[in-house]
Amino acid sequence: EIPSAPPQVWMYCRLYRKLERFRSPELLDAAKAGGEFLLRYARVAPPGKKCAFVLTRDGRPVKVQRTIFSECFYTMAMNELWRVTGEARYQSILSSPPHPGAPGLLATPPPHGGIFLVGWQGLKAHLASLFLPRQRDGQAVLENVSEDGEELSGCLGRHQNPGHALEAGWFLLRHAIRKGDPELRAHVIDKFLLLPFRSGWDADHGGLFYFQDADGLCPTQLEWAMKLWWPHSEAMIAFLMGYSDSGDPALLHLFCRVADYTFRQVSGLPVRHGCGGNMPDFVTGRNPQCVHIPRQVERHLQYCTHTSRLPSTASGQLRLLTRNAFINNMC
Amino acid sequence: EIPSAPPQVWMYCRLYRKLERFRSPELLDAAKAGGEFLLRYARVAPPGKKCAFVLTRDGRPVKVQRTIFSECFYTMAMNELWRVTGEARYQSILSSPPHPGAPGLLATPPPHGGIFLVGWQGLKAHLASLFLPRQRDGQAVLENVSEDGEELSGCLGRHQNPGHALEAGWFLLRHAIRKGDPELRAHVIDKFLLLPFRSGWDADHGGLFYFQDADGLCPTQLEWAMKLWWPHSEAMIAFLMGYSDSGDPALLHLFCRVADYTFRQVSGLPVRHGCGGNMPDFVTGRNPQCVHIPRQVERHLQYCTHTSRLPSTASGQLRLLTRNAFINNMC
Repeated sequence: EIPSAPPQVWMYCRLYRKLERFRSPELLDAAKAGGEFLLRYARVAPPGKKCAFVLTRDGRPVKVQRTIFSECFYTMAMNELWRVTGEARYQSILSSPPHPGAPGLLATPPPHGGIFLVGWQGLKAHLASLFLPRQRDGQAVLENVSEDGEELSGCLGRHQNPGHALEAGWFLLRHAIRKGDPELRAHVIDKFLLLPFRSGWDADHGGLFYFQDADGLCPTQLEWAMKLWWPHSEAMIAFLMGYSDSGDPALLHLFCRVADYTFRQVSGLPVRHGCGGNMPDFVTGRNPQCVHIPRQVERHLQYCTHTSRLPSTASGQLRLLTRNAFINNMC
Repeated sequence: EIPSAPPQVWMYCRLYRKLERFRSPELLDAAKAGGEFLLRYARVAPPGKKCAFVLTRDGRPVKVQRTIFSECFYTMAMNELWRVTGEARYQSILSSPPHPGAPGLLATPPPHGGIFLVGWQGLKAHLASLFLPRQRDGQAVLENVSEDGEELSGCLGRHQNPGHALEAGWFLLRHAIRKGDPELRAHVIDKFLLLPFRSGWDADHGGLFYFQDADGLCPTQLEWAMKLWWPHSEAMIAFLMGYSDSGDPALLHLFCRVADYTFRQVSGLPVRHGCGGNMPDFVTGRNPQCVHIPRQVERHLQYCTHTSRLPSTASGQLRLLTRNAFINNMC
């Protein structure tokens, strides 16, 4: 599947490139095998740029979506593969990002997938303009806004995804840190880290809801109240990054709160997102695990190694947590 | 939304046409207003036949699917409106059903939506050939098969939907009864009523699972273990139809078992599919309520009125159940 295979290629390359312990030929070979498959089969009608969303094992397209998810994932994977191998043939065919409103690429009007666009180097400069308008007067982060940043009507406009908000939060936070913009940094911590956590955390049972409605109505998605692993990964990255940068113990405390909850749930998780019980409280989900969780591990290992601010107990706990997460997910 | 609006039009017309108590001008006017909206806006690029899946309130297409769901629903609604008003302009533009493999209409290869095709009069003769191949050697009813009736590989091929199996079951049962084919009737009761019920019923907590995997693996859909109202409606129709035809008390017993469970759950249901609790055990779901549940009420009222075989206590219970269901759902 496109939402699964390209992130896998991307992640393999990134682990290979960034972390010494993953610099094995097997990992690179696996990434290249995935890249070759995508190169040959991902595009529905080459040289057209439209990519299939689901392919069979032998490369026939099963599902084609109007969103730009597939093309974003494809481009990210190929560019990372190009970077790690230096082979120009991997350089993405989507050399410029498609315009969000381009017909046949994105269903009008919600710019779903904007969050993935930041994989493109060229878009990093536009991070703030991509995510900052997704707020309702600073009271909520909205998943979908119109192309000119206005709130959409109906449940589509009220739709919230706390995991995406927190993910956007750490993209923005990194951007603010790199830019050296303390005002943006403070705003992001307040509105994209603390706010989504406060409103998205289940006060009764713990954990981040999958979906919410900005007016407090019931989301239309049946799975809205489920707790998925990946939003918790994003929350942990966000709070650890915030703490690592600011030294604010409140952010470390939030990191520990999410980590405690998450790894307690993960340790009790039956194989393959909770098939054992009736309605599992905590699930791993289907596609995004191969990017969210290894990415979390990569981030955490970096913080463990480079952050002198981290208290040694927290650092030890982190190493343990990330090792467990990695073993649970990757092996 | 197309999965919601046309079934509503269809249901209003049908209630108006079939049941004396619903023969009100308001109901017909509502159906006609819906029909006019669809006539004007449903097709993405008239005179093309492709219909949008989601429209805005003012008729702009938001989502267009490659499946044929939208066209099926549209055709069913329009033909029912034509039937009740006698106005030829409602006669469906989709005068012949699109070929399931036609490019742009149905994603290859799974014939999703085949179950809805039976709304077309012209397809009623093909019921058996549509549904009977969806079996794995009589051991399971599969949701998706290839166009030539073969099992598909992977989780798509193993995908099961007990509610759809039971719904197909009563379509087939009615077909067998009308044809006067006792062999088909017995086969259907065995393989499309009893089998999906046995494998789809949650032995520990009661209720029909939303999705299952024919190999007993964990379905990939997060919501697989949820209990939705509509599969229970289909099960009740199926068992009541089976009992009404055969007089077999085992089928009445199964009807009562599903009805007891369902209405016990429904009576405790918070407003709008269980927003109150953490992870609700029983949910109404989003779109299909306006067809599944009123259709169940219509069916049940017919059985209450016409089935002399029904014991008077069961008949009284049924009247109460259907009245409650109707009040809960429609008011």
